[in-house]
Amino acid sequence: MLELYHGGPGANSLKALLPLKEKGLEFTSHVLNLLQFEQHEPWFVKINPNGQVPVLVHDGKVLTESTVINEYVDETFQGIPLRPPDAYGRAQMRVWTKFVDEYFCPALSFLGWYAMIRTAVRDLSPAEFEAKVQRIPLKEQRDKWRESAAQVWTPQQLDDWRRRVRASIQRMEQGMAGPWMLGSQFTLADVSLFSMLIGMPERYADIVNQKGSPRVVDWYSRMMERPGVKAALAIPRPSREFLETQQKAEAAARGHPEATPRNQAFRP
Amino acid sequence: MLELYHGGPGANSLKALLPLKEKGLEFTSHVLNLLQFEQHEPWFVKINPNGQVPVLVHDGKVLTESTVINEYVDETFQGIPLRPPDAYGRAQMRVWTKFVDEYFCPALSFLGWYAMIRTAVRDLSPAEFEAKVQRIPLKEQRDKWRESAAQVWTPQQLDDWRRRVRASIQRMEQGMAGPWMLGSQFTLADVSLFSMLIGMPERYADIVNQKGSPRVVDWYSRMMERPGVKAALAIPRPSREFLETQQKAEAAARGHPEATPRNQAFRP
Repeated sequence: MLELYHGGPGANSLKALLPLKEKGLEFTSHVLNLLQFEQHEPWFVKINPNGQVPVLVHDGKVLTESTVINEYVDETFQGIPLRPPDAYGRAQMRVWTKFVDEYFCPALSFLGWYAMIRTAVRDLSPAEFEAKVQRIPLKEQRDKWRESAAQVWTPQQLDDWRRRVRASIQRMEQGMAGPWMLGSQFTLADVSLFSMLIGMPERYADIVNQKGSPRVVDWYSRMMERPGVKAALAIPRPSREFLETQQKAEAAARGHPEATPRNQAFRP
Repeated sequence: MLELYHGGPGANSLKALLPLKEKGLEFTSHVLNLLQFEQHEPWFVKINPNGQVPVLVHDGKVLTESTVINEYVDETFQGIPLRPPDAYGRAQMRVWTKFVDEYFCPALSFLGWYAMIRTAVRDLSPAEFEAKVQRIPLKEQRDKWRESAAQVWTPQQLDDWRRRVRASIQRMEQGMAGPWMLGSQFTLADVSLFSMLIGMPERYADIVNQKGSPRVVDWYSRMMERPGVKAALAIPRPSREFLETQQKAEAAARGHPEATPRNQAFRP
Protein backbone atom coordinates (compact mmCIF):
# COMPACT_ATOMS: atom_id res chain seq x y z
CA MET A 1 0.00 0.00 0.00
CA LEU A 2 1.55 3.27 -1.16
CA GLU A 3 0.06 6.71 -0.54
CA LEU A 4 1.40 10.17 -1.25
CA TYR A 5 0.11 13.32 0.42
CA HIS A 6 1.19 16.26 -1.69
CA GLY A 7 0.26 19.67 -3.10
CA GLY A 8 0.28 18.74 -6.77
CA PRO A 9 3.09 19.04 -9.33
CA GLY A 10 5.16 21.95 -8.03
CA ALA A 11 8.32 22.35 -5.89
CA ASN A 12 8.90 19.63 -3.28
CA SER A 13 5.62 17.87 -4.02
CA LEU A 14 6.62 17.55 -7.67
CA LYS A 15 9.96 16.22 -6.47
CA ALA A 16 8.23 13.31 -4.71
CA LEU A 17 5.72 12.71 -7.54
CA LEU A 18 8.33 12.33 -10.28
CA PRO A 19 10.04 9.12 -9.09
CA LEU A 20 6.68 7.44 -8.53
CA LYS A 21 5.65 8.27 -12.09
CA GLU A 22 9.08 7.52 -13.59
CA LYS A 23 8.96 4.07 -12.00
CA GLY A 24 5.33 3.59 -12.97
CA LEU A 25 4.26 2.80 -9.41
CA GLU A 26 0.62 2.56 -8.37
CA PHE A 27 -0.16 4.86 -5.45
CA THR A 28 -3.08 6.60 -3.81
CA SER A 29 -2.79 10.34 -4.39
CA HIS A 30 -4.01 12.76 -1.70
CA VAL A 31 -3.81 16.32 -3.03
CA LEU A 32 -3.94 19.20 -0.52
CA ASN A 33 -4.60 22.86 -1.27
CA LEU A 34 -1.52 24.37 0.34
CA LEU A 35 -2.74 27.95 -0.07
CA GLN A 36 -5.86 27.14 1.92
CA PHE A 37 -3.79 25.74 4.80
CA GLU A 38 -4.99 22.15 4.40
CA GLN A 39 -1.55 20.85 5.43
CA HIS A 40 -2.13 22.33 8.89
CA GLU A 41 -5.49 20.67 9.47
CA PRO A 42 -5.47 18.46 12.59
CA TRP A 43 -6.04 15.28 10.53
CA PHE A 44 -2.88 15.94 8.52
CA VAL A 45 -0.74 17.07 11.47
CA LYS A 46 -1.49 13.65 12.95
CA ILE A 47 0.30 12.17 9.93
CA ASN A 48 3.16 14.69 9.81
CA PRO A 49 3.55 16.72 13.02
CA ASN A 50 5.48 19.36 11.03
CA GLY A 51 2.39 20.04 8.87
CA GLN A 52 4.34 19.80 5.63
CA VAL A 53 3.96 17.93 2.37
CA PRO A 54 5.00 15.69 0.72
CA VAL A 55 4.49 12.65 2.94
CA LEU A 56 4.80 9.09 1.68
CA VAL A 57 3.05 6.31 3.57
CA HIS A 58 4.28 2.84 2.64
CA ASP A 59 2.67 -0.12 4.40
CA GLY A 60 2.03 2.08 7.44
CA LYS A 61 5.55 3.58 7.51
CA VAL A 62 5.47 7.38 7.33
CA LEU A 63 8.24 9.11 5.38
CA THR A 64 8.84 12.86 5.27
CA GLU A 65 11.26 15.19 3.42
CA SER A 66 11.08 14.87 -0.36
CA THR A 67 14.81 14.26 -0.80
CA VAL A 68 14.75 11.47 1.77
CA ILE A 69 11.54 10.02 0.30
CA ASN A 70 13.13 9.83 -3.15
CA GLU A 71 16.16 7.81 -2.01
CA TYR A 72 13.78 5.52 -0.15
CA VAL A 73 11.61 5.00 -3.22
CA ASP A 74 14.64 4.22 -5.37
CA GLU A 75 16.06 1.81 -2.79
CA THR A 76 12.72 0.07 -2.27
CA PHE A 77 10.94 -0.24 -5.60
CA GLN A 78 11.64 -1.72 -8.99
CA GLY A 79 11.48 0.30 -12.19
CA ILE A 80 14.02 2.64 -13.77
CA PRO A 81 16.96 3.14 -11.33
CA LEU A 82 17.21 6.79 -10.31
CA ARG A 83 20.60 6.71 -8.61
CA PRO A 84 24.02 5.95 -10.13
CA PRO A 85 25.21 2.36 -9.62
CA ASP A 86 28.51 3.50 -8.04
CA ALA A 87 29.16 5.24 -4.71
CA TYR A 88 31.02 8.17 -6.27
CA GLY A 89 28.14 8.80 -8.69
CA ARG A 90 25.67 8.73 -5.80
CA ALA A 91 27.86 11.23 -3.93
CA GLN A 92 27.83 13.58 -6.92
CA MET A 93 24.05 13.19 -7.13
CA ARG A 94 23.69 14.04 -3.44
CA VAL A 95 25.77 17.19 -3.78
CA TRP A 96 23.10 18.39 -6.23
CA THR A 97 20.06 17.32 -4.20
CA LYS A 98 21.63 18.94 -1.12
CA PHE A 99 22.37 22.13 -3.06
CA VAL A 100 18.72 22.30 -4.12
CA ASP A 101 17.51 21.85 -0.54
CA GLU A 102 19.92 24.26 1.12
CA TYR A 103 20.42 27.01 -1.44
CA PHE A 104 18.27 26.97 -4.59
CA CYS A 105 14.91 26.00 -3.08
CA PRO A 106 14.93 28.47 -0.14
CA ALA A 107 15.75 31.43 -2.39
CA LEU A 108 13.14 30.49 -4.99
CA SER A 109 10.60 29.77 -2.30
CA PHE A 110 10.91 33.18 -0.62
CA LEU A 111 10.47 34.90 -3.99
CA GLY A 112 7.45 32.74 -4.80
CA TRP A 113 5.80 33.37 -1.44
CA TYR A 114 6.40 37.10 -1.73
CA ALA A 115 4.66 37.10 -5.11
CA MET A 116 1.81 34.81 -4.11
CA ILE A 117 0.73 34.77 -0.47
CA ARG A 118 -0.75 38.24 -0.14
CA THR A 119 -3.06 37.56 -3.06
CA ALA A 120 -3.84 34.04 -1.89
CA VAL A 121 -5.10 35.22 1.51
CA ARG A 122 -6.98 38.33 0.29
CA ASP A 123 -10.34 36.92 1.39
CA LEU A 124 -9.23 36.45 4.98
CA SER A 125 -9.54 39.18 7.57
CA PRO A 126 -6.35 39.69 9.61
CA ALA A 127 -7.99 37.80 12.50
CA GLU A 128 -9.00 34.90 10.26
CA PHE A 129 -5.51 34.82 8.77
CA GLU A 130 -3.88 34.84 12.20
CA ALA A 131 -6.12 31.97 13.32
CA LYS A 132 -4.92 29.93 10.34
CA VAL A 133 -1.30 30.80 11.04
CA GLN A 134 -1.52 29.85 14.68
CA ARG A 135 -2.28 26.25 13.71
CA ILE A 136 1.04 25.94 11.85
CA PRO A 137 3.35 23.68 13.88
CA LEU A 138 6.75 25.16 12.89
CA LYS A 139 7.67 28.66 14.03
CA GLU A 140 9.75 29.26 10.90
CA GLN A 141 6.69 28.48 8.77
CA ARG A 142 4.45 30.76 10.83
CA ASP A 143 6.97 33.56 10.37
CA LYS A 144 7.15 32.94 6.62
CA TRP A 145 3.35 33.11 6.20
CA ARG A 146 3.09 36.29 8.26
CA GLU A 147 6.02 38.01 6.63
CA SER A 148 4.98 37.17 3.10
CA ALA A 149 1.35 38.21 3.68
CA ALA A 150 2.55 41.52 5.16
CA GLN A 151 5.30 41.81 2.50
CA VAL A 152 7.83 42.99 5.03
CA TRP A 153 10.86 41.76 3.10
CA THR A 154 13.14 44.54 1.89
CA PRO A 155 14.18 45.14 -1.73
CA GLN A 156 17.70 44.09 -0.63
CA GLN A 157 16.41 40.71 0.58
CA LEU A 158 14.43 40.18 -2.62
CA ASP A 159 17.49 41.14 -4.70
CA ASP A 160 19.64 38.72 -2.73
CA TRP A 161 17.23 35.81 -3.26
CA ARG A 162 17.10 36.68 -6.95
CA ARG A 163 20.90 36.67 -7.05
CA ARG A 164 20.89 33.21 -5.46
CA VAL A 165 18.40 31.90 -8.02
CA ARG A 166 20.58 33.28 -10.80
CA ALA A 167 23.70 31.72 -9.21
CA SER A 168 21.86 28.38 -8.98
CA ILE A 169 21.05 28.41 -12.68
CA GLN A 170 24.63 29.29 -13.54
CA ARG A 171 25.92 26.48 -11.35
CA MET A 172 23.58 24.10 -13.21
CA GLU A 173 24.72 25.47 -16.58
CA GLN A 174 28.37 24.90 -15.71
CA GLY A 175 27.78 21.49 -14.11
CA MET A 176 25.50 20.01 -16.77
CA ALA A 177 27.24 16.88 -18.07
CA GLY A 178 24.45 16.21 -20.57
CA PRO A 179 22.09 14.89 -21.65
CA TRP A 180 21.21 14.70 -17.91
CA MET A 181 22.85 16.53 -15.01
CA LEU A 182 25.33 13.74 -14.21
CA GLY A 183 25.71 12.44 -17.78
CA SER A 184 23.99 9.56 -19.52
CA GLN A 185 21.83 8.49 -16.57
CA PHE A 186 18.67 10.32 -15.50
CA THR A 187 18.90 10.58 -11.69
CA LEU A 188 17.40 12.17 -8.59
CA ALA A 189 19.64 15.18 -9.31
CA ASP A 190 17.49 15.86 -12.40
CA VAL A 191 14.37 15.24 -10.33
CA SER A 192 15.36 17.73 -7.62
CA LEU A 193 16.49 20.44 -10.02
CA PHE A 194 13.51 20.09 -12.36
CA SER A 195 11.10 20.41 -9.43
CA MET A 196 12.52 23.89 -8.93
CA LEU A 197 12.88 24.75 -12.64
CA ILE A 198 9.29 23.95 -13.57
CA GLY A 199 7.76 27.10 -15.07
CA MET A 200 10.96 29.15 -14.68
CA PRO A 201 11.56 29.68 -18.43
CA GLU A 202 8.28 31.63 -18.38
CA ARG A 203 8.31 33.22 -14.91
CA TYR A 204 12.06 33.90 -14.80
CA ALA A 205 12.76 34.41 -18.51
CA ASP A 206 15.53 36.88 -17.65
CA ILE A 207 17.38 34.13 -15.76
CA VAL A 208 16.51 30.94 -17.66
CA ASN A 209 16.86 31.55 -21.40
CA GLN A 210 18.64 30.25 -24.49
CA LYS A 211 21.29 32.97 -24.39
CA GLY A 212 22.34 32.85 -20.73
CA SER A 213 21.79 29.16 -19.92
CA PRO A 214 21.46 27.21 -23.19
CA ARG A 215 22.34 23.84 -21.69
CA VAL A 216 19.76 24.26 -18.93
CA VAL A 217 17.10 25.24 -21.48
CA ASP A 218 17.88 22.22 -23.67
CA TRP A 219 17.81 19.93 -20.62
CA TYR A 220 14.45 21.43 -19.60
CA SER A 221 13.04 20.57 -23.03
CA ARG A 222 14.30 17.01 -22.71
CA MET A 223 12.74 16.77 -19.26
CA MET A 224 9.37 17.95 -20.59
CA GLU A 225 9.39 15.10 -23.12
CA ARG A 226 9.75 12.33 -20.54
CA PRO A 227 6.55 10.31 -20.09
CA GLY A 228 7.08 10.22 -16.30
CA VAL A 229 7.36 14.00 -16.18
CA LYS A 230 4.27 14.42 -18.35
CA ALA A 231 2.32 12.07 -16.10
CA ALA A 232 3.36 13.99 -12.97
CA LEU A 233 2.55 17.36 -14.51
CA ALA A 234 -0.94 16.12 -15.45
CA ILE A 235 -1.88 15.72 -11.77
CA PRO A 236 -4.15 18.50 -10.43
CA ARG A 237 -2.61 21.31 -8.37
CA PRO A 238 -5.46 22.91 -6.45
CA SER A 239 -3.31 25.68 -4.96
CA ARG A 240 -2.47 26.96 -8.44
CA GLU A 241 -6.11 27.00 -9.55
CA PHE A 242 -7.04 28.72 -6.30
CA LEU A 243 -4.30 31.31 -6.77
CA GLU A 244 -5.41 32.04 -10.33
CA THR A 245 -8.96 32.66 -9.09
CA GLN A 246 -7.65 35.04 -6.45
CA GLN A 247 -5.45 36.81 -8.99
CA LYS A 248 -8.45 37.34 -11.28
CA ALA A 249 -10.46 38.73 -8.38
CA GLU A 250 -7.61 41.05 -7.52
CA ALA A 251 -7.28 42.27 -11.09
CA ALA A 252 -11.03 42.83 -11.38
CA ALA A 253 -11.01 44.84 -8.15
CA ARG A 254 -8.30 47.21 -9.36
CA GLY A 255 -9.73 50.69 -9.68
CA HIS A 256 -12.74 49.65 -7.61
CA PRO A 257 -11.99 50.86 -4.09
CA GLU A 258 -15.26 49.38 -2.85
CA ALA A 259 -13.83 45.94 -3.66
CA THR A 260 -10.84 46.36 -1.36
CA PRO A 261 -9.91 42.92 -0.11
CA ARG A 262 -10.56 42.09 3.51
CA ASN A 263 -6.89 41.71 4.29
CA GLN A 264 -6.09 45.37 3.53
CA ALA A 265 -4.24 45.50 6.84
CA PHE A 266 -1.48 43.52 5.12
CA ARG A 267 -0.98 46.14 2.42
CA PRO A 268 2.36 47.91 2.70
CA MET B 1 44.92 6.17 -1.27
CA LEU B 2 42.70 8.09 1.13
CA GLU B 3 43.26 11.70 2.21
CA LEU B 4 41.15 14.04 4.31
CA TYR B 5 41.54 17.80 4.30
CA HIS B 6 39.90 19.14 7.44
CA GLY B 7 40.06 21.67 10.26
CA GLY B 8 40.47 19.22 13.13
CA PRO B 9 37.83 17.66 15.40
CA GLY B 10 35.05 20.25 15.39
CA ALA B 11 31.78 20.76 13.50
CA ASN B 12 31.72 19.46 9.90
CA SER B 13 35.37 18.40 9.97
CA LEU B 14 34.69 16.26 13.03
CA LYS B 15 31.69 14.84 11.16
CA ALA B 16 33.98 13.53 8.42
CA LEU B 17 36.71 12.37 10.80
CA LEU B 18 34.44 10.18 12.95
CA PRO B 19 33.49 7.53 10.35
CA LEU B 20 37.13 7.15 9.29
CA LYS B 21 38.14 6.54 12.89
CA GLU B 22 35.08 4.38 13.71
CA LYS B 23 35.94 2.14 10.76
CA GLY B 24 39.64 2.19 11.62
CA LEU B 25 40.66 3.35 8.15
CA GLU B 26 44.17 4.50 7.31
CA PHE B 27 44.20 7.96 5.78
CA THR B 28 46.51 10.91 5.26
CA SER B 29 45.37 13.80 7.44
CA HIS B 30 45.80 17.38 6.18
CA VAL B 31 44.81 19.81 8.95
CA LEU B 32 44.09 23.43 7.98
CA ASN B 33 43.87 26.41 10.34
CA LEU B 34 40.43 27.69 9.38
CA LEU B 35 40.78 30.88 11.42
CA GLN B 36 43.87 31.83 9.46
CA PHE B 37 42.05 31.40 6.16
CA GLU B 38 44.10 28.43 4.97
CA GLN B 39 41.04 26.92 3.27
CA HIS B 40 41.02 29.89 0.89
CA GLU B 41 44.65 29.52 -0.20
CA PRO B 42 45.00 29.01 -3.96
CA TRP B 43 46.45 25.50 -3.50
CA PHE B 44 43.33 24.40 -1.60
CA VAL B 45 40.82 26.16 -3.85
CA LYS B 46 42.29 24.05 -6.65
CA ILE B 47 41.09 20.99 -4.72
CA ASN B 48 37.71 22.43 -3.64
CA PRO B 49 36.65 25.50 -5.65
CA ASN B 50 34.27 26.44 -2.81
CA GLY B 51 37.20 26.82 -0.40
CA GLN B 52 35.56 24.68 2.27
CA VAL B 53 36.58 21.70 4.39
CA PRO B 54 36.22 18.78 4.80
CA VAL B 55 37.31 17.29 1.50
CA LEU B 56 37.95 13.58 1.02
CA VAL B 57 40.21 12.45 -1.81
CA HIS B 58 39.93 8.75 -2.60
CA ASP B 59 42.11 7.38 -5.38
CA GLY B 60 42.02 10.78 -7.08
CA LYS B 61 38.24 11.25 -6.70
CA VAL B 62 37.40 14.46 -4.83
CA LEU B 63 34.40 14.41 -2.48
CA THR B 64 32.92 17.45 -0.74
CA GLU B 65 30.14 18.05 1.80
CA SER B 66 30.60 16.13 5.05
CA THR B 67 27.15 14.50 4.96
CA VAL B 68 27.75 13.24 1.42
CA ILE B 69 31.28 12.13 2.27
CA ASN B 70 29.98 10.04 5.18
CA GLU B 71 27.48 8.07 3.10
CA TYR B 72 30.23 7.50 0.52
CA VAL B 73 32.63 6.22 3.18
CA ASP B 74 30.03 3.85 4.58
CA GLU B 75 29.10 2.57 1.11
CA THR B 76 32.72 2.12 0.06
CA PHE B 77 34.72 0.81 3.01
CA GLN B 78 34.61 -2.16 5.34
CA GLY B 79 34.42 -1.80 9.10
CA ILE B 80 31.49 -1.11 11.39
CA PRO B 81 28.40 -0.31 9.29
CA LEU B 82 27.19 3.24 10.00
CA ARG B 83 23.83 3.10 8.23
CA PRO B 84 20.81 0.93 9.04
CA PRO B 85 20.49 -2.19 6.92
CA ASP B 86 16.94 -1.33 5.81
CA ALA B 87 15.68 1.49 3.59
CA TYR B 88 13.26 2.86 6.19
CA GLY B 89 16.03 3.03 8.79
CA ARG B 90 18.28 4.86 6.32
CA ALA B 91 15.44 7.31 5.65
CA GLN B 92 15.07 8.02 9.36
CA MET B 93 18.83 8.51 9.59
CA ARG B 94 18.77 10.98 6.69
CA VAL B 95 15.99 13.02 8.28
CA TRP B 96 18.43 13.62 11.16
CA THR B 97 21.51 14.34 9.05
CA LYS B 98 19.42 16.73 6.94
CA PHE B 99 18.05 18.42 10.04
CA VAL B 100 21.60 19.00 11.28
CA ASP B 101 22.68 20.50 7.96
CA GLU B 102 19.65 22.72 7.40
CA TYR B 103 18.65 23.83 10.89
CA PHE B 104 20.92 22.92 13.79
CA CYS B 105 24.34 23.57 12.22
CA PRO B 106 23.54 26.99 10.68
CA ALA B 107 22.16 28.34 13.98
CA LEU B 108 25.06 27.02 16.03
CA SER B 109 27.56 28.21 13.44
CA PHE B 110 26.33 31.82 13.45
CA LEU B 111 26.53 31.91 17.26
CA GLY B 112 30.02 30.43 17.19
CA TRP B 113 31.26 32.86 14.56
CA TYR B 114 29.80 35.80 16.45
CA ALA B 115 31.68 34.72 19.59
CA MET B 116 34.93 33.91 17.82
CA ILE B 117 35.77 35.74 14.61
CA ARG B 118 36.35 39.23 15.95
CA THR B 119 38.91 37.91 18.40
CA ALA B 120 40.47 35.59 15.84
CA VAL B 121 41.19 38.43 13.40
CA ARG B 122 42.33 41.01 15.97
CA ASP B 123 45.86 41.12 14.55
CA LEU B 124 44.69 42.03 11.08
CA SER B 125 44.18 45.62 10.00
CA PRO B 126 40.87 46.20 8.20
CA ALA B 127 42.74 46.26 4.89
CA GLU B 128 44.54 42.99 5.65
CA PHE B 129 41.27 41.41 6.74
CA GLU B 130 39.50 42.56 3.60
CA ALA B 131 42.30 41.13 1.45
CA LYS B 132 41.81 37.75 3.14
CA VAL B 133 38.04 37.93 2.69
CA GLN B 134 38.28 38.80 -0.98
CA ARG B 135 39.94 35.45 -1.68
CA ILE B 136 36.91 33.54 -0.35
CA PRO B 137 35.10 31.94 -3.30
CA LEU B 138 31.50 31.95 -1.95
CA LYS B 139 29.70 35.27 -1.46
CA GLU B 140 27.72 33.86 1.48
CA GLN B 141 31.01 33.00 3.23
CA ARG B 142 32.51 36.43 2.52
CA ASP B 143 29.40 38.01 4.05
CA LYS B 144 29.60 35.76 7.08
CA TRP B 145 33.26 36.65 7.77
CA ARG B 146 32.63 40.37 7.36
CA GLU B 147 29.44 40.40 9.42
CA SER B 148 30.87 38.35 12.27
CA ALA B 149 34.09 40.41 12.42
CA ALA B 150 32.04 43.62 12.50
CA GLN B 151 29.46 42.02 14.83
CA VAL B 152 26.57 43.55 12.95
CA TRP B 153 24.06 40.89 13.97
CA THR B 154 21.26 42.20 16.15
CA PRO B 155 20.31 40.85 19.60
CA GLN B 156 17.10 39.58 17.93
CA GLN B 157 19.10 37.51 15.43
CA LEU B 158 21.33 36.12 18.16
CA ASP B 159 18.27 35.27 20.26
CA ASP B 160 16.65 33.54 17.30
CA TRP B 161 19.71 31.37 16.63
CA ARG B 162 19.86 30.52 20.31
CA ARG B 163 16.18 29.55 20.17
CA ARG B 164 16.93 27.27 17.22
CA VAL B 165 19.80 25.61 19.06
CA ARG B 166 17.52 25.03 22.03
CA ALA B 167 14.80 23.63 19.74
CA SER B 168 17.37 21.31 18.15
CA ILE B 169 18.37 19.87 21.52
CA GLN B 170 14.73 19.39 22.47
CA ARG B 171 14.05 17.63 19.18
CA MET B 172 16.99 15.31 19.93
CA GLU B 173 15.76 14.73 23.48
CA GLN B 174 12.31 13.73 22.23
CA GLY B 175 13.60 11.65 19.32
CA MET B 176 16.33 9.74 21.16
CA ALA B 177 15.48 6.04 20.84
CA GLY B 178 18.48 5.03 22.95
CA PRO B 179 21.16 3.99 23.43
CA TRP B 180 21.85 5.71 20.07
CA MET B 181 19.64 8.15 18.20
CA LEU B 182 17.88 5.51 16.09
CA GLY B 183 18.04 2.71 18.67
CA SER B 184 20.49 -0.12 19.04
CA GLN B 185 22.66 0.80 16.05
CA PHE B 186 25.22 3.63 16.11
CA THR B 187 24.71 5.48 12.81
CA LEU B 188 25.59 8.59 10.84
CA ALA B 189 22.74 10.32 12.69
CA ASP B 190 24.83 10.06 15.87
CA VAL B 191 27.90 11.20 13.93
CA SER B 192 26.18 14.32 12.57
CA LEU B 193 24.56 15.29 15.85
CA PHE B 194 27.67 14.70 17.96
CA SER B 195 29.74 16.85 15.62
CA MET B 196 27.49 19.73 16.65
CA LEU B 197 27.15 18.74 20.32
CA ILE B 198 30.86 18.50 21.01
CA GLY B 199 31.69 20.92 23.82
CA MET B 200 28.09 22.09 24.21
CA PRO B 201 27.58 20.71 27.77
CA GLU B 202 30.30 23.22 28.77
CA ARG B 203 29.67 26.15 26.38
CA TYR B 204 25.87 25.86 26.38
CA ALA B 205 25.29 24.48 29.88
CA ASP B 206 21.95 26.33 30.06
CA ILE B 207 20.71 24.34 27.03
CA VAL B 208 22.45 20.94 27.36
CA ASN B 209 22.18 19.72 30.94
CA GLN B 210 20.96 16.79 33.01
CA LYS B 211 17.73 18.52 33.98
CA GLY B 212 16.53 19.80 30.61
CA SER B 213 17.89 17.11 28.29
CA PRO B 214 18.89 14.06 30.34
CA ARG B 215 18.75 11.60 27.45
CA VAL B 216 20.99 13.83 25.33
CA VAL B 217 23.47 14.19 28.20
CA ASP B 218 23.59 10.42 28.74
CA TRP B 219 24.01 9.83 25.01
CA TYR B 220 26.84 12.39 24.97
CA SER B 221 28.62 10.46 27.73
CA ARG B 222 28.25 7.22 25.77
CA MET B 223 29.61 8.94 22.66
CA MET B 224 32.66 10.18 24.58
CA GLU B 225 33.49 6.60 25.58
CA ARG B 226 33.66 5.28 22.02
CA PRO B 227 37.24 4.52 20.90
CA GLY B 228 36.52 5.99 17.44
CA VAL B 229 35.32 9.23 19.01
CA LYS B 230 38.34 9.37 21.32
CA ALA B 231 40.67 8.82 18.36
CA ALA B 232 39.00 11.60 16.36
CA LEU B 233 39.07 14.04 19.29
CA ALA B 234 42.81 13.40 19.77
CA ILE B 235 43.59 14.92 16.37
CA PRO B 236 45.04 18.48 16.55
CA ARG B 237 42.74 21.43 15.87
CA PRO B 238 45.00 24.36 15.04
CA SER B 239 42.16 26.88 14.81
CA ARG B 240 41.25 26.24 18.44
CA GLU B 241 44.83 26.67 19.66
CA PHE B 242 45.12 29.83 17.58
CA LEU B 243 41.86 31.18 19.00
CA GLU B 244 42.98 30.50 22.56
CA THR B 245 46.19 32.43 21.94
CA GLN B 246 44.18 35.36 20.56
CA GLN B 247 41.78 35.21 23.51
CA LYS B 248 44.69 35.37 25.96
CA ALA B 249 46.14 38.36 24.11
CA GLU B 250 42.75 40.05 24.20
CA ALA B 251 42.35 39.41 27.93
CA ALA B 252 45.87 40.69 28.64
CA ALA B 253 45.17 43.86 26.66
CA ARG B 254 42.05 44.71 28.66
CA GLY B 255 42.62 47.93 30.55
CA HIS B 256 45.68 48.65 28.42
CA PRO B 257 44.48 51.07 25.74
CA GLU B 258 47.96 51.09 24.18
CA ALA B 259 47.41 47.43 23.31
CA THR B 260 44.25 48.11 21.30
CA PRO B 261 44.10 45.48 18.59
CA ARG B 262 44.74 46.54 15.02
CA ASN B 263 41.22 45.67 13.95
CA GLN B 264 39.60 48.26 16.22
CA ALA B 265 37.63 49.46 13.21
CA PHE B 266 35.51 46.32 13.65
CA ARG B 267 34.52 47.22 17.19
CA PRO B 268 30.85 48.09 17.50
